[in-house]
Amino acid sequence: MNNVSFLKCIKCGREYPATPEATTCPACGPVEGILDVVYDYSQVKRELTREALAQNQVYSIWRYSPLLPILPQGPRSALRVGWTPTYRGQRLARELGVRELFIKDDGLNPTASLKDRASALGVTKALEAGATTVACASTGNAASSLAGNAASVGLNTVIFLPERAPAGKVAQLLMFGATVVSVQGNYQDAFRLSSQAISGWGWYNRNAAINPYLVEGKKTVSLEMAEQLGWKVPDWVVFSVGDGCTIGGAWRGFVDLYEIGLIDRLPRMLGVQAAGCAPIYRAWKGKGPLLPEEEKTLADSIAVGVPRNSQKALRAINDSQGLMITVSDEEILSAMRLLGRTLGIFGEPAGVAGVAGLKRALEEGLLEPEQSFGVVITGNGLKDVANGIKAAGEPLQIPPDIQVLREVLKKRGIV
Amino acid sequence: MNNVSFLKCIKCGREYPATPEATTCPACGPVEGILDVVYDYSQVKRELTREALAQNQVYSIWRYSPLLPILPQGPRSALRVGWTPTYRGQRLARELGVRELFIKDDGLNPTASLKDRASALGVTKALEAGATTVACASTGNAASSLAGNAASVGLNTVIFLPERAPAGKVAQLLMFGATVVSVQGNYQDAFRLSSQAISGWGWYNRNAAINPYLVEGKKTVSLEMAEQLGWKVPDWVVFSVGDGCTIGGAWRGFVDLYEIGLIDRLPRMLGVQAAGCAPIYRAWKGKGPLLPEEEKTLADSIAVGVPRNSQKALRAINDSQGLMITVSDEEILSAMRLLGRTLGIFGEPAGVAGVAGLKRALEEGLLEPEQSFGVVITGNGLKDVANGIKAAGEPLQIPPDIQVLREVLKKRGIV
Repeated sequence: MNNVSFLKCIKCGREYPATPEATTCPACGPVEGILDVVYDYSQVKRELTREALAQNQVYSIWRYSPLLPILPQGPRSALRVGWTPTYRGQRLARELGVRELFIKDDGLNPTASLKDRASALGVTKALEAGATTVACASTGNAASSLAGNAASVGLNTVIFLPERAPAGKVAQLLMFGATVVSVQGNYQDAFRLSSQAISGWGWYNRNAAINPYLVEGKKTVSLEMAEQLGWKVPDWVVFSVGDGCTIGGAWRGFVDLYEIGLIDRLPRMLGVQAAGCAPIYRAWKGKGPLLPEEEKTLADSIAVGVPRNSQKALRAINDSQGLMITVSDEEILSAMRLLGRTLGIFGEPAGVAGVAGLKRALEEGLLEPEQSFGVVITGNGLKDVANGIKAAGEPLQIPPDIQVLREVLKKRGIV
Repeated sequence: MNNVSFLKCIKCGREYPATPEATTCPACGPVEGILDVVYDYSQVKRELTREALAQNQVYSIWRYSPLLPILPQGPRSALRVGWTPTYRGQRLARELGVRELFIKDDGLNPTASLKDRASALGVTKALEAGATTVACASTGNAASSLAGNAASVGLNTVIFLPERAPAGKVAQLLMFGATVVSVQGNYQDAFRLSSQAISGWGWYNRNAAINPYLVEGKKTVSLEMAEQLGWKVPDWVVFSVGDGCTIGGAWRGFVDLYEIGLIDRLPRMLGVQAAGCAPIYRAWKGKGPLLPEEEKTLADSIAVGVPRNSQKALRAINDSQGLMITVSDEEILSAMRLLGRTLGIFGEPAGVAGVAGLKRALEEGLLEPEQSFGVVITGNGLKDVANGIKAAGEPLQIPPDIQVLREVLKKRGIV
């Protein structure tokens, strides 16, 4: 094992060896006993220098292997995950009235979402464990990324998903040869059934809150953003929040970079939930316990009524002196158009919720416009075309006649 | 202008200056008078060496600027186009019974198809020309790539598309802020109306057969494949064929590399059309003139009954001592599953037609299994989920009950 020292429970602090099969802390249980991967930073620091990276021609998450919990010469998932582009969003910055804005399009991962980063780690660990079947419950993206990464190396996958998952995501799964179990119920029901099945049949577990290695994959989004911006981290980094793993993983990436000296300050994290399903936001706001909620938002990838990793999400917000905010579905659809029009990026609803949240936080005066901002678009809009159409409207329909065209375009002020 | 000497008509050989607004040869007309971009290879050779590329940290089509018809310090489309992954497809090679097979996933371009390569060039040339509006007719991918690339730099777009274009592609267009004109009719009708409008209102023309610069963008797919394979080109390179521009551009890329000495042999090209719409195949097979055909295939991106660039496609096949073949829609759907299951890549029907064609050509004994093959997946399956579902089937639907799950999985032999 590379530079990993051990796994550590975020509740009780107990330490465990970093075996590929590790899940949660036996003492604290599967809900609260989430494990952190602890690295020997002094060793990482020697390997992962700015100079070494400038020479490194691997442009994928494996670029950061010294900071990942994988065997140096072990097997790897075969898809090219990561090194998605980070754009300077000048026109979007102007429209939002901020000085500097960067957008990272993680919808350009192989199965079109940020979740590929976690699944590539999951598949790699499954190979290390000698597993032949991997499984997870997912609202969609974790599943399709798992199925795609598993197919790339010949592993079997069993996927449990809530019945509301959009058709595009289901098509991906089936195409990748996964066994797809659509559970009549919500995400919670699918998650519970997957846990029973995984422990019953001994499959490799890719549920993100249970498997301590997956957030380590997710953190590569921050490692990349920092490197792509010349190690100058924005004042604020914005993520949509569902289960809590992504923002937790992203924060972990910045902390790692700070610990090994590659960045000299940490960003503040803005977590955005959909108003129709915001249990982590409400726990943060009310400083109280997490209460289950219904899943009433079109942003299906962050519609998680019983989030499994609120601890890591809240740690990211609190440790970074960050903020949380909620946005309506209308604001999300409007952000889709805004992002498409100003940057040529088509994000899925959950994927653009960060843009909607940034806009709202600026409008509410919670953020200073002269600061710099980084927003990660976590999934591709092609995954959920129905909502894309809802946001975008319909095309002009005309016969092939230039006179008709002229009239229509005139009415719209185009000619 | 970089290293471009002039434009040359492929029919009469007349030469023209390489202005951004250039279209077709006035002497030979817009159908036959297609222009080639002619480079000063002796100059390109000095700039584009293996050593220079090994040092070059630009991982996009602009990596190959010395071989592109763009101003060295001019404006650029802002999306990160190109440098898509080329995978070694070992399990797919085994299933097809060939020695060596490489798959390049061009669905990972910013708007999810190879067409981004052409549109990035088109938008760059439109900026050079000082245009404010760009337009094209398209079955979908050329349009969405144009709209996305144009949005990235603030250009207006007007898109003409046939009414059958799939919803995912239409949603992308609208999201990118394009004016979308759905023409009641086929691709031919949309193309004709776009030509009238473009000349009437003086917009910048991104119709691929008319605009001589677009295939130059497309050729970057070959430049990348060659570099990613260590300058060892496969014996055969396979493309699906619709309008003819893509395979024509791809061949041009290999010829360029050969001329400047970066590769020491040329591949043979296999062009694949859908059996339900194969006018270029039939012209090649019968050595006769091109006859219009109906557009009867689910592979909408290559359903072009009156192809506008059959000349460059046929030149690619003939000059490379290549072949053409047709495949049924069933073979295309089957290739989608095969590719997903063995590589974790979800391609759209036209995008995987190359895989289907390779399989058929091997079955018919037209190719030698001990040779090496490269296939380019030209578009992402998420663009056309309806056909994805058609190919993939439906998920298992069960209540959240482990006993029911056990029975269902037992029946399928999974547990």
